[in-house]
Amino acid sequence: MTLYRALADELAELITRGTLQVGDRMPSVRQLCREKKISPATAMRAYEALEAKGLLESRSRSGYYVSANWREPQHEPQSSRPRSRKTRVDVSELVFEILESARDRDVIPLGSAFPSPLLFPWAKLARYLGSSARHTDPWSTVESLPPGSEELRRQIARRYLLFGTRVLVEEIIITSGALEALNLSLQTVTRPGDTVAIEAPAFYACLQAIEIAGLKAVEIPTHPREGVELGALDLAIRKHNVRACWFMTTFQNPLGATMPPEKKQELVQLLARREIPLIEDDVYAELYFGNERPKPAKAFDTKGLVLNCGSFSKCLAPGYRLGWVSAGRFAKALQRRKITSTLATSVPIQNGIALMLREDGYDAHLTRLRQAFKTQQADALRSLRKHFPAGYRVAIPDGGYFLWIELAKNIDVLEVHRLALEANISVAPGPMFSARREFTSCLRLNYGHSWTPVMDRAIEELGKIIKTMDGKKGRPTA
Amino acid sequence: MTLYRALADELAELITRGTLQVGDRMPSVRQLCREKKISPATAMRAYEALEAKGLLESRSRSGYYVSANWREPQHEPQSSRPRSRKTRVDVSELVFEILESARDRDVIPLGSAFPSPLLFPWAKLARYLGSSARHTDPWSTVESLPPGSEELRRQIARRYLLFGTRVLVEEIIITSGALEALNLSLQTVTRPGDTVAIEAPAFYACLQAIEIAGLKAVEIPTHPREGVELGALDLAIRKHNVRACWFMTTFQNPLGATMPPEKKQELVQLLARREIPLIEDDVYAELYFGNERPKPAKAFDTKGLVLNCGSFSKCLAPGYRLGWVSAGRFAKALQRRKITSTLATSVPIQNGIALMLREDGYDAHLTRLRQAFKTQQADALRSLRKHFPAGYRVAIPDGGYFLWIELAKNIDVLEVHRLALEANISVAPGPMFSARREFTSCLRLNYGHSWTPVMDRAIEELGKIIKTMDGKKGRPTA
Repeated sequence: MTLYRALADELAELITRGTLQVGDRMPSVRQLCREKKISPATAMRAYEALEAKGLLESRSRSGYYVSANWREPQHEPQSSRPRSRKTRVDVSELVFEILESARDRDVIPLGSAFPSPLLFPWAKLARYLGSSARHTDPWSTVESLPPGSEELRRQIARRYLLFGTRVLVEEIIITSGALEALNLSLQTVTRPGDTVAIEAPAFYACLQAIEIAGLKAVEIPTHPREGVELGALDLAIRKHNVRACWFMTTFQNPLGATMPPEKKQELVQLLARREIPLIEDDVYAELYFGNERPKPAKAFDTKGLVLNCGSFSKCLAPGYRLGWVSAGRFAKALQRRKITSTLATSVPIQNGIALMLREDGYDAHLTRLRQAFKTQQADALRSLRKHFPAGYRVAIPDGGYFLWIELAKNIDVLEVHRLALEANISVAPGPMFSARREFTSCLRLNYGHSWTPVMDRAIEELGKIIKTMDGKKGRPTA
Repeated sequence: MTLYRALADELAELITRGTLQVGDRMPSVRQLCREKKISPATAMRAYEALEAKGLLESRSRSGYYVSANWREPQHEPQSSRPRSRKTRVDVSELVFEILESARDRDVIPLGSAFPSPLLFPWAKLARYLGSSARHTDPWSTVESLPPGSEELRRQIARRYLLFGTRVLVEEIIITSGALEALNLSLQTVTRPGDTVAIEAPAFYACLQAIEIAGLKAVEIPTHPREGVELGALDLAIRKHNVRACWFMTTFQNPLGATMPPEKKQELVQLLARREIPLIEDDVYAELYFGNERPKPAKAFDTKGLVLNCGSFSKCLAPGYRLGWVSAGRFAKALQRRKITSTLATSVPIQNGIALMLREDGYDAHLTRLRQAFKTQQADALRSLRKHFPAGYRVAIPDGGYFLWIELAKNIDVLEVHRLALEANISVAPGPMFSARREFTSCLRLNYGHSWTPVMDRAIEELGKIIKTMDGKKGRPTA
């Protein structure tokens, strides 16, 4: 457990046991540092975590106070308990219906998969793109066939080193976004009919990829803060002939869960013993709120079995469609798959982003972006506390821009989705994230957009819809 | 038959029958126009065609003369006669070996699939790319999800109209290059195990796509000038349960064949009667040497069964990876496939090319590009006549940048490929283009690069290799 979380837990206990009372002023950050012999950053982070949970509230120029809200503490959802049978996946139609219903610019994007496009450095990106295009060697358009631009792959390998992960330039293959990287990985390490272990709930594009590739899925119980349960995974591997795992190990979509480093290491070792490849969807990790980027499972990979998939779409350049995979021992086979499916990735895009990575500016942008998401998370949680009926559970992630909310069992979220859309609000209902359309009382909410009064009112409206449904008996679910 | 080709055939007969003798001066273009009541363009095109075939030679400021070369007339290859059974495709490994061996910048690219990158308007493209990126509405990065930029799709639909083809903006889906469009089309209209009718020889990426999708191929006899034989196709459809056709109807790669318009219409009607979709690979059609762009089969499609796939990679912006498919009745299903496989196509790339199409400059570039390929074709044919041993056959296409050459039956082109590569010359051997690795004595040569003395010497070297092998008995082929 991280230091700040231990401290937060300790303080939370003082509050819930009544040692600290509603309205009490908390020690100042300076006092707390002196007393606990910790850094100001750790103290601040602990207070912010407690604020996010609704236990504290900050008053400007005065410090933190015990909030009246804590009497309705926000519990986390528990680990999922999916059936342990393997299953055909049948969710694509539902996902498309929901995605298409929410594409309108005028719909409030609580169900969106994307953060606000206003948070990204478009002018700077345009400059680098134009400049690198003007200086492109025409021959490079032929030579940048897969694996892709060597300069870009070198920059990506350099960034892996920043968080203690050694990746060879030779194993990196540039793709048109992370989704292509993930699909190519899946196609490279499986054959139709194979079984793949996934999280429950899982990212819907993972479910669609499995469905389209003619694979079967086995859903593994997943903890909302610490990710896949390894004991359950081990059992599933013994029981089914699992040929690959597809996990999002950091800020999992939709849960927000992050496996602690030691758990990631254990996962890699467990799979290595059986030579099972891990497709690691790692697109949110740069959006951490703590002090450093969580290491990927790839950092512990000694046998080349982890295919770590990344992207610039969530953290630098949405819509540019630039991703990659560090494919370990599968690099050569995956490169060939890429050549036969989309041939190559856009050369000006590769060169433009490579230039931006070399010339600096990326880290400063990331710092701003993380701060925005962190603030917006606290704002969103505040709106929820204000407007949602008591009894919901929410997992509070340490990064990313999604909240996973568990409502009362009798609430049918597909109906919530339908009613919300009538009020011009999108939500992402739980069944989108499940091979068997489970999680029928869960929602994923996006806080990646400026938390304006419009957003607060949207949450209020959602709260009303849920309260109304809570009064009646929920519709029977499919 | 086009007017110029009828005239060329008439003049060719006068030469081969001896009415016109070696060294005779031909009528001037003006005389010919007066006499035949044709346009100067038609007369010029007929003379150029005869020059390309080696029957005439032009002398500067003096006109055209009957060439001494015609005594070794360059016959066309005959229609292919593939086996009429359906077959698993097993060519991917061979294709990769050959492609990878030829990626070195120092290898003379007679085997390359790409034209010279020096023929494209890089500075202008960079300007449009930078400019459109600077003015991108951030929200468009979300809204340009498939089907893609509406402005770009409108520009593409407008260009279809220029050659008499009406396509709805709504049926166009933007892709990351034509290969993605083709793959998505194939996956949309077939299920694993289905049978697809293809040309013989066929573009190797088509063979690889079929192999990877777990489909079977039935190869249809194909004429080197007029494309797929419809009688044979009809038989194959009756015999096998053909679920789709994948044909390159204009300047087919590798043959260079172009179906005449009435044949394209007949093809569309034949398939419409059986509701069989046609995947039309149409990426070379803008590279015509005649007076107008050949119409695609799509122009005759009344039932929405033709999926016409295009690209800017061969004619405007290599390496940008921008293509599209006009998918008719399959548009919605194909759009969903795209979302699940690569999500979207790069927004700055879409906007940059859309701006270039709107702002003009594309047609002027195309005119220059066509002229370059036309001149280089004549140069390449001259080198072949000079250096290749007599008896080879060559089909002379009316566009594109490939020549398909049939050598004596005992020549093993895989061995030619190996020996040429030792001399730093790449060639594309026939078996790359065949599900069963047939066409063992055929070569595809690329004339898309400036025909410098280096190219002439490469052809000379190839000629020597072939002569040496012709002396011995060719190796037994697989």
